[in-house]
Amino acid sequence: MGKGRVEAFTDGVVAIIITIMVLELKVPEGEDFSVLLPQWPHFLSYVLSFIYVGIYWNNLHNMFHTVQHVDGRVLWANMNLLFWLSLMPITTAFMGENHFAAVPAAVYGIDLVLCAVAYWILVAQLHRLHGPETSFAKGLGADFKGRISVVIYLAAIALAFVNHWIAIGLYVLVAVIWFVPDTRFERQIKKEQSR
Amino acid sequence: MGKGRVEAFTDGVVAIIITIMVLELKVPEGEDFSVLLPQWPHFLSYVLSFIYVGIYWNNLHNMFHTVQHVDGRVLWANMNLLFWLSLMPITTAFMGENHFAAVPAAVYGIDLVLCAVAYWILVAQLHRLHGPETSFAKGLGADFKGRISVVIYLAAIALAFVNHWIAIGLYVLVAVIWFVPDTRFERQIKKEQSR
Amino acid sequence: MGKGRVEAFTDGVVAIIITIMVLELKVPEGEDFSVLLPQWPHFLSYVLSFIYVGIYWNNLHNMFHTVQHVDGRVLWANMNLLFWLSLMPITTAFMGENHFAAVPAAVYGIDLVLCAVAYWILVAQLHRLHGPETSFAKGLGADFKGRISVVIYLAAIALAFVNHWIAIGLYVLVAVIWFVPDTRFERQIKKEQSR
Amino acid sequence: MGKGRVEAFTDGVVAIIITIMVLELKVPEGEDFSVLLPQWPHFLSYVLSFIYVGIYWNNLHNMFHTVQHVDGRVLWANMNLLFWLSLMPITTAFMGENHFAAVPAAVYGIDLVLCAVAYWILVAQLHRLHGPETSFAKGLGADFKGRISVVIYLAAIALAFVNHWIAIGLYVLVAVIWFVPDTRFERQIKKEQSR
Repeated sequence: MGKGRVEAFTDGVVAIIITIMVLELKVPEGEDFSVLLPQWPHFLSYVLSFIYVGIYWNNLHNMFHTVQHVDGRVLWANMNLLFWLSLMPITTAFMGENHFAAVPAAVYGIDLVLCAVAYWILVAQLHRLHGPETSFAKGLGADFKGRISVVIYLAAIALAFVNHWIAIGLYVLVAVIWFVPDTRFERQIKKEQSR
Repeated sequence: MGKGRVEAFTDGVVAIIITIMVLELKVPEGEDFSVLLPQWPHFLSYVLSFIYVGIYWNNLHNMFHTVQHVDGRVLWANMNLLFWLSLMPITTAFMGENHFAAVPAAVYGIDLVLCAVAYWILVAQLHRLHGPETSFAKGLGADFKGRISVVIYLAAIALAFVNHWIAIGLYVLVAVIWFVPDTRFERQIKKEQSR
Repeated sequence: MGKGRVEAFTDGVVAIIITIMVLELKVPEGEDFSVLLPQWPHFLSYVLSFIYVGIYWNNLHNMFHTVQHVDGRVLWANMNLLFWLSLMPITTAFMGENHFAAVPAAVYGIDLVLCAVAYWILVAQLHRLHGPETSFAKGLGADFKGRISVVIYLAAIALAFVNHWIAIGLYVLVAVIWFVPDTRFERQIKKEQSR
Repeated sequence: MGKGRVEAFTDGVVAIIITIMVLELKVPEGEDFSVLLPQWPHFLSYVLSFIYVGIYWNNLHNMFHTVQHVDGRVLWANMNLLFWLSLMPITTAFMGENHFAAVPAAVYGIDLVLCAVAYWILVAQLHRLHGPETSFAKGLGADFKGRISVVIYLAAIALAFVNHWIAIGLYVLVAVIWFVPDTRFERQIKKEQSR
């Protein structure tokens, strides 16, 4: 089964998720600058989630590049990832409306963990399908970033109840770590082209 | 007439349906865990509908794979299916907000029946266009799953008024039956490739 | 300039318009059948607009099939059509919420007239670009349906103030006329292929 | 890395932005013409933003046409542009609901400046990647329009506090300047084809 339509569907859903998040930013009532200031938690959580969804799109873009084919189990592993990503507009708004309070910050982290686990499952399914000698498997490598992210997310969820700003700081840290797109597949592509 | 744009349009509409459903999940007011618990009916109905729309996408993906061309009647049969699918965000929210009460559960089932019937009509139109000796027709087979689903939906609608949890259980049962994607077309593709 | 991206963008916008219209259908409050009945004007206006947007998609699909290239003026003529189509969710909800009252019914018709005029302008721009001897121009023909539609819309707008159901009846009539997709381009394609 | 998926993702996000803006147009309550008149600020700001997003789509369409490849930094420069464009539905609604008052008009201009700066950064990243002897670089030229736009936006933001209609007039002026799509790349394509 070709990967084209799965890529297109995934891109479509991710494009909609990243864009409808803005609908959770309420239009402030009133017409002077003082009504804008209280919007900063909504805005900041929107920025953070926009970057996270952008990171996922970038990584999916690079990963699917080396994928050769998909099957039913890959389709459902992908659907599972899209499900947890689709909750980001809600967890983002929940965190923004409560000014990054402990529970909403932890819930946001739980969704991030579930997205990361879903990404792992998707990668595992693609690995099963492609075998160890393909560019997909070679590009994959050790996935240090993926593992450290989940560790940081879990720490953030626990520490949210000590001080919720530690949790936010850790989410920003993971975003910074991933900001540089996952170059594993990019490097593998180059290596093969240079042969 | 080529199938490319119909596939792309269908994928686009399905991607939007599956994603805007999340907009019906209201952001809970309050910042502790106690505000999350009452959200479970909304969340559960969202999960169920996400899986149903995912199943439709999977089946449409496999079915269109063996389609060679479309005509005006196929376009409208497809539009008809998209119409009933487009009501899923509303029937889902109606069911979630009323904690799976009898009438909302029955209405949800009625929409599922209408989606299933619309899918049948689409398949019938494609069958008319392709003739009995094409891979489309051969892949189609007896459609046991499609028939049994409608029987279960109808039973669920009736039984919702006895005990609404029976209806929900039956919807979950159909989702499980379909969870394994419709492999008829997949098998037909493989059979032809191996020749 | 190739037509591919314009087609894809147009399909994307039309897919979003047809799907977000459902967000204007409010989830009824209450859990028995009695809360569904008052929803019929919303539902009926949704059905009507779904068919209208579907008709536009079908006609754009057929028309772009014979288009060979586009330029800046075509892009803006297309944007203009998308603008008036994008108002359909609002005019539909306005009509549904007011039970097809005279003014909302007339406003709905005004938007339909503006969509039809925008479609004409788009066709005229494509005609200018393609010249009279292309399959686009030959497929176009006399556009009887387009002309009669605008006449009926204008009659409906005026008659809405006599009896608003006449207006609704006329909108249904135009939908029926167009329901059969615009076969001009389809026929032209067949004619050329058979040579 | 190919440009295809980036183009498709960008088009998807822009299509969603331009369409969900209409969800901020509230359905007027009441059923006679008098309820429509107070909607004019919402409508006018919607028209203005629809044209602005349309201009961005047109320019991105022309620019990506001469692009040959993208890398991680281009992807993020593009994401940055999409971020500021994604705020347009909110700044538009803020301006419309406050009848183009000074602060909302200035906020709208600030978002336009940030979009323009993001566009510059994207162009600069593509320029770095393509080198001075490519059709991309040659098509680019001096970008007089881009520079003058930012100057006008900044003037409009300052003058909004003198008289907010001056700001609106200047936004309309920039839209008129850009209405003619950026023909730099179009001309470059023609020049190369005629060789």
